[in-house]
Amino acid sequence: MRQKPETTKRNSMDSYQEISNKAIFLCKLVLKMTTHAGSGHPSSSLSIAHIITALMYKIMKYDLNDPWNPANDRLVLSEGHAVPLVYAAYADLNGVWGVDQNKKQVLTIDDLFSLRQINSPLDGHPNPSTGFPFFDCATGSLGQGLSCACGLAISARAQGIKKKVYVIIGDGESREGQIWEACDFIIDHGLTEVIPVFNCNGLGQTGSVSKQQSPQNLASKLKAFGFDIRNIDGHNPVEILESFQQKKGNHPFAVLAKTVKGWGVELLKGDNHGKPVSKKTLDQALSDLDSLKTCNHDTNRVKVHPSSPQKIKNLPEKKLQLLPDPDFYSLLENDPYLSKYQKGLMSTRRAFGLALKESGQINNQIFVLDADVSNSTFTEYFSKSCPERFIQCFIGEQNMISVAAGLSKSNYIPFVASFAKFLVRGYDQLELALIAEANIKLCGSHVGINIGADGPSQMGITDLGYMRTLSTVHNNDGEPLIVILNPACAVAAYKFVQLMTEHKGCCYLRLIRQDLPLLYLPSEKFEFGGAKLLRKGKDVAIMATGYMVHACIKVVEELVEAGISPSLYDCYSIPVNPQTVTEAALENGGKIVTVEDNYGNGLGTEIASIVSSDPSIKAVVKQLYAKRIPKSGILSEDVLDFAGIGV
Amino acid sequence: MRQKPETTKRNSMDSYQEISNKAIFLCKLVLKMTTHAGSGHPSSSLSIAHIITALMYKIMKYDLNDPWNPANDRLVLSEGHAVPLVYAAYADLNGVWGVDQNKKQVLTIDDLFSLRQINSPLDGHPNPSTGFPFFDCATGSLGQGLSCACGLAISARAQGIKKKVYVIIGDGESREGQIWEACDFIIDHGLTEVIPVFNCNGLGQTGSVSKQQSPQNLASKLKAFGFDIRNIDGHNPVEILESFQQKKGNHPFAVLAKTVKGWGVELLKGDNHGKPVSKKTLDQALSDLDSLKTCNHDTNRVKVHPSSPQKIKNLPEKKLQLLPDPDFYSLLENDPYLSKYQKGLMSTRRAFGLALKESGQINNQIFVLDADVSNSTFTEYFSKSCPERFIQCFIGEQNMISVAAGLSKSNYIPFVASFAKFLVRGYDQLELALIAEANIKLCGSHVGINIGADGPSQMGITDLGYMRTLSTVHNNDGEPLIVILNPACAVAAYKFVQLMTEHKGCCYLRLIRQDLPLLYLPSEKFEFGGAKLLRKGKDVAIMATGYMVHACIKVVEELVEAGISPSLYDCYSIPVNPQTVTEAALENGGKIVTVEDNYGNGLGTEIASIVSSDPSIKAVVKQLYAKRIPKSGILSEDVLDFAGIGV
Repeated sequence: MRQKPETTKRNSMDSYQEISNKAIFLCKLVLKMTTHAGSGHPSSSLSIAHIITALMYKIMKYDLNDPWNPANDRLVLSEGHAVPLVYAAYADLNGVWGVDQNKKQVLTIDDLFSLRQINSPLDGHPNPSTGFPFFDCATGSLGQGLSCACGLAISARAQGIKKKVYVIIGDGESREGQIWEACDFIIDHGLTEVIPVFNCNGLGQTGSVSKQQSPQNLASKLKAFGFDIRNIDGHNPVEILESFQQKKGNHPFAVLAKTVKGWGVELLKGDNHGKPVSKKTLDQALSDLDSLKTCNHDTNRVKVHPSSPQKIKNLPEKKLQLLPDPDFYSLLENDPYLSKYQKGLMSTRRAFGLALKESGQINNQIFVLDADVSNSTFTEYFSKSCPERFIQCFIGEQNMISVAAGLSKSNYIPFVASFAKFLVRGYDQLELALIAEANIKLCGSHVGINIGADGPSQMGITDLGYMRTLSTVHNNDGEPLIVILNPACAVAAYKFVQLMTEHKGCCYLRLIRQDLPLLYLPSEKFEFGGAKLLRKGKDVAIMATGYMVHACIKVVEELVEAGISPSLYDCYSIPVNPQTVTEAALENGGKIVTVEDNYGNGLGTEIASIVSSDPSIKAVVKQLYAKRIPKSGILSEDVLDFAGIGV
Repeated sequence: MRQKPETTKRNSMDSYQEISNKAIFLCKLVLKMTTHAGSGHPSSSLSIAHIITALMYKIMKYDLNDPWNPANDRLVLSEGHAVPLVYAAYADLNGVWGVDQNKKQVLTIDDLFSLRQINSPLDGHPNPSTGFPFFDCATGSLGQGLSCACGLAISARAQGIKKKVYVIIGDGESREGQIWEACDFIIDHGLTEVIPVFNCNGLGQTGSVSKQQSPQNLASKLKAFGFDIRNIDGHNPVEILESFQQKKGNHPFAVLAKTVKGWGVELLKGDNHGKPVSKKTLDQALSDLDSLKTCNHDTNRVKVHPSSPQKIKNLPEKKLQLLPDPDFYSLLENDPYLSKYQKGLMSTRRAFGLALKESGQINNQIFVLDADVSNSTFTEYFSKSCPERFIQCFIGEQNMISVAAGLSKSNYIPFVASFAKFLVRGYDQLELALIAEANIKLCGSHVGINIGADGPSQMGITDLGYMRTLSTVHNNDGEPLIVILNPACAVAAYKFVQLMTEHKGCCYLRLIRQDLPLLYLPSEKFEFGGAKLLRKGKDVAIMATGYMVHACIKVVEELVEAGISPSLYDCYSIPVNPQTVTEAALENGGKIVTVEDNYGNGLGTEIASIVSSDPSIKAVVKQLYAKRIPKSGILSEDVLDFAGIGV
């Protein structure tokens, strides 16, 4: 449990001098390590020196020997380029690092000089996957840290842990709209555990920040969004300590700290965003800092340690429960949709929604995040059965994806669902989540031009190409960064929820708006990389995915009537197992046609890449996809014709 | 010039009744057309009925016979799903439509019943490219319209045109962070011409909007951002008219309109976001509306027309001036970089910056948009030589790209430059811009893992795959939606600015951070789809792009020493001309290796797709790219080794 703050002692002149001198000591380390590395952002680092010192040495409660302890207070450095200061403090405090607890070792002052080197855990921007677990989230693309912190806070609540999450945000950075999505989210959810600290040094990369990001304007905005504000001098240790130690009440508050970029070093003041001081001028810069010391304490003698975090029992790692094969009839028992299902129709998005509901009831690790479209993605089933783990993010997709990234760091499994088109809004956030090895299940509905009437602004048509790009790369476990699942049948969609839940790593599930005939029995088995041979022929292999599997079933009938015997594959997963392609080529006279109703660079290039890279596969691959920008059409078929891929 | 508003007459009971009855008339049309289409969003449409009626019939000054007139006041319907109401008003007013002025025709009431059909200009969401030029911007993915409006206003200013741009924004939509980026932008640039109207009906798609989006909270936020606020009842014509006609002063203002979703129709109130009324209940819904009529005027008899816009002289279409071949020595005459250039080194980003400066001085159609990284992308050269056309957007990439979309609609050519990584933030905005056939030149610097020390959060590595996805699709002129240019040499980067400026359509230019040796003479010619054969061999064709061309030059040396004779291609453009690939395969024994330092799905799949689709090309394609998620490394080579593509 939290101890009473020792206000009297802490705010004393001792604390003032301790923090001041420690900050100077750290600033000097930052100068040395960035000059040694030949790059880095010392001027931003120096502007947060006193704030970070106060937080890491006095305010935060965490275990330096166990950065994995879920009870630790956390720091999210949203303006990631200022990270050298944090590394310096952590090394001075002898914190441990390592890719996991079995390989932990103490970070030494010497280690600081490996900053940015290829074998160092000290990446140019916060990156937990290099072995620096003091951070949960990768930052460096600006504006995302506050949202990640919200995810951390929500998972702590779910675990019954009381901890604080401090977030350092640049003033220039606060121009990013995502910051304001996160502010709304904090107020909506009353996340008093999340404490945004705005570092107002007044300078961006190329010059002054806009007046819109002045401390005064930021204060007005934050108040309007619902925050209490504490204005401080960010280089005054007493003001810093008091701002965090004031009686908190039940209201979210934010700290606005006026700071100086390049604090204490003449050479670094003004226009010096990304540059370290040169080797030549390093001594001058260091002596600038020495001259600011307020007393002659040996900083190592007065070393103070952070308090310990709340003691928590080991959180049991709950085993995932298996979802049984779907029995749609009973799942839909009281659902108005039952009559349509009885006609043999079911959309993949509805099956996904039903599976999520069922899986959520037996697996309380599952969270669902929605951006006000749960009645389109059918996460509304889950929202009704597990409301405590359904997070309404409203229409702010960027924030939603970063919240999921934070949430996934405590072994929760966030399913993030929206229209595939709107998830594009959060691709940058997804990329940062992937750097941090977040375990997010992204679910995009209304994929393909088959959605028809709503028009191109609602269609997920670039998503497959983008996600395939991520699927070509592997994470440290050798798994694709993203596994793509593109079910053509409700049974597959249902069962993919199970596959995604079990898989440690990001997945992308594509969901179709239309009600479609079922292709598989409830007992059918699916696997990553798999494909289903729906018809075995000999003249041409049609390899289709998603909605186009259904369109191709009609094509197959016409071809058979015309005397041609095609094979038809349902390629429901990317990466595709190359063996399937080898077989398809071999058994169909080397003729392959790929069919998808998104833009190119999806299934077609997957197959083309396999065929062209393997001299033993003799085949020609014709890629069919939406060749022009679509528009509205009442019938899917109209839009398919329009885009050049009609039956 | 603007006439004095006829306040007395306009705000009279006549106006009140005229607008009320006209709104009811339009609401009835909306019900009929959406029920006929079987989809659409009548409830949202009805909530803006009075606002749109007041704007389109009374407030806006525009020429119904010439929606292309640049002096027209403009409407941006950011909550695009409410568009049926605008279509109904435009048809009632006999406005013209057409893909261009030579094919214009009057929109009739009958035409409304083609809503969402494949041959109709009336798409499900605003889409100017279908032939509805009353709109400039495609909307439908929420939160983007206000930024587009800023672009329209900036271009009007540049043309010396005084006009207003009205933007309708949903309350739920105002959760999107981009709205607040746009608000900052409006205040920064004093864009009083842009008038945001928040439609506060209190309901999103799945239920109530958050309290954070209540009219009270929106008012507080907008005030904090710097707006004057006008609170009105959005169904009271007098309040609506007065809110737009009040003496404006020199300060941006926003209108907050309290409205009712499904106004006037019992069946549509509450939870009915995307559904039209059924055919069965249509009569009931229509009679609900009839009962609200305030008098028995025949609405067609009291039809009022909007006032005419400002008369402007024809804007001359200025011919683009050609950029001469680069003479870097004299371009860098007073630049500290000259000494490095004299050693034979130059980064592509610097050459881009120099070209942009030169081209900007002779072509005043060129605008440059920056997100506070002009000293990294080198648009700072342009910012100094053409400050009046340099738009500082600060750190808000989403807003930046949508502003560019608006700006490009008046024949301006916006170059939008940031780190390629940070442009990912605006991919959804780019997609909407592409729907509207915006002519944007996107320039992403720091591409590839070669940037080294800063780490993966700063590297453009998914961009090539994403952009190639867009390059597989064609616009209405038969051009790729995106032409990708990936120069390996400063000369190429310089000359690509010329190619991009001339091209009508979106381009994506990738820029490298590193200083690199020049590969070409200043007179070298480049073209879309082109590639350069740097070494002609016979054993294997190495097809590289960007930074990896330089890495491959070293590889070629080693291969030659080992007795192998490779060909080396610099593939600087995607789509690649298939002829190059045919030749490469034919002359190198059918062995092709592609090399790029981004994730897969870029150049490799381009070549693989060409090879595998053409039976006459006998070749095996080995794709080399970054196979794992990178991290920081001091040397580019370290990071390339780490990701499995070292020399």
